[in-house]
Amino acid sequence: MTEPATGRVAIVLFSGGLDSTTCLAIAKSEGFTPVALSFRYGQRHTVELDCAAEIAASEGVEHLIADIDLAAFGGSALIDASLAIPKHESLEELAAEDPGNSGVPITYVPARNTIFLSFALAVAEVRGSSDVYIGVNAVDYSGYPDCRPEFVEAFQSMANLATRAGVEGDPLVIHTPLIAMTKGQIVQLGAELGVDYSRTSTCYDPGADGGACGHCEACLLRARGFDDAGIADPTRYTSG
Amino acid sequence: MTEPATGRVAIVLFSGGLDSTTCLAIAKSEGFTPVALSFRYGQRHTVELDCAAEIAASEGVEHLIADIDLAAFGGSALIDASLAIPKHESLEELAAEDPGNSGVPITYVPARNTIFLSFALAVAEVRGSSDVYIGVNAVDYSGYPDCRPEFVEAFQSMANLATRAGVEGDPLVIHTPLIAMTKGQIVQLGAELGVDYSRTSTCYDPGADGGACGHCEACLLRARGFDDAGIADPTRYTSG
Repeated sequence: MTEPATGRVAIVLFSGGLDSTTCLAIAKSEGFTPVALSFRYGQRHTVELDCAAEIAASEGVEHLIADIDLAAFGGSALIDASLAIPKHESLEELAAEDPGNSGVPITYVPARNTIFLSFALAVAEVRGSSDVYIGVNAVDYSGYPDCRPEFVEAFQSMANLATRAGVEGDPLVIHTPLIAMTKGQIVQLGAELGVDYSRTSTCYDPGADGGACGHCEACLLRARGFDDAGIADPTRYTSG
Repeated sequence: MTEPATGRVAIVLFSGGLDSTTCLAIAKSEGFTPVALSFRYGQRHTVELDCAAEIAASEGVEHLIADIDLAAFGGSALIDASLAIPKHESLEELAAEDPGNSGVPITYVPARNTIFLSFALAVAEVRGSSDVYIGVNAVDYSGYPDCRPEFVEAFQSMANLATRAGVEGDPLVIHTPLIAMTKGQIVQLGAELGVDYSRTSTCYDPGADGGACGHCEACLLRARGFDDAGIADPTRYTSG
């Protein structure tokens, strides 16, 4: 157990989803005062941003939303409404369609985590913080290159050459508490920390009522996480 | 001399200033089809963006402007109108005020080059490009941590773990053709490549007429560059 951070500021990348909401709870439990950072980046729906704002408000956490127009560049189904989000009945069906789990899926957004972490780095520098939390996960993930531990380590090395702190101050630490956990373990830990998962949004393609589709890879991974944790799934699914 | 790139796309970070305009000319001379990328990032003036748009149009170069609100975070005189841009009569006077050239100046924008390169990485990935140009310069520079060669090398290493290309494709190369050149050498090379420097804007704090102030560090370094190159300075200075 490391020393508690006793009120030092940590910047927490925060989408309002299951992983980043758990990350926020972990940063708090480790003694940090979190500043939550979300992005309006041209995503095809803003359900997750609404969830993020509600969770931050109820937790009494400062919440920044940065406007960046990634959709102007295109290149992903998450930001390009002309590309369909793949839907499946189960993770097994999904795996059967792509037996080698080859390639990077269409829901990958080019350089998204690099851009998000770059903004977190800027906010950390302005706030005099040396700590950034990101809820990436290398176990139950979707083959995104920018969720791998080697990416995060390389970003941290780069960040410590990029800023004033890299020249004059404390080195930046990028915390990835979820990186080696299964979704089930994440849900289990979050439940122990009191996370209210009914407030979080994970779905890539929610219905008009804001409910989850239940069939995108994010929904399927989330549902299996609750199942594995033996915790009732509080997700509100769309009625159409 | 390496092989010419014969029409391959390169993303060129492009402010409309002396360095990045020279970079654009170099990318062209090396056979690339440049895509120029500028940012509306909350800078205190947009003279340089106007220059960038005019230069790109006259060169027939595709020009993207990304909107990102760095000013919301503050932390630099370049994006915070309440902080004054330091002014000096000469580089010698500036050096005398800070004999050890210690520290990072107030015009440094937190994590700016990290953010700019992250967007360039995204555009490169979407366009299938493996080449990014950035006009950083480690000789006549202002002590910015994110202009150093070790920063750029670390960014390149990180970038090659961050994207689809890092998993499946050609590695990304970040070109820094100016990194070891003096301002005089940059001006000399640009002149040989036909750059019209009268169109470029370098000043941190131009007058209402768009003319350069002549007294900020950027103006002083630029003026010395023309002087060292033995080329008449085409800069239009403000009349008030």
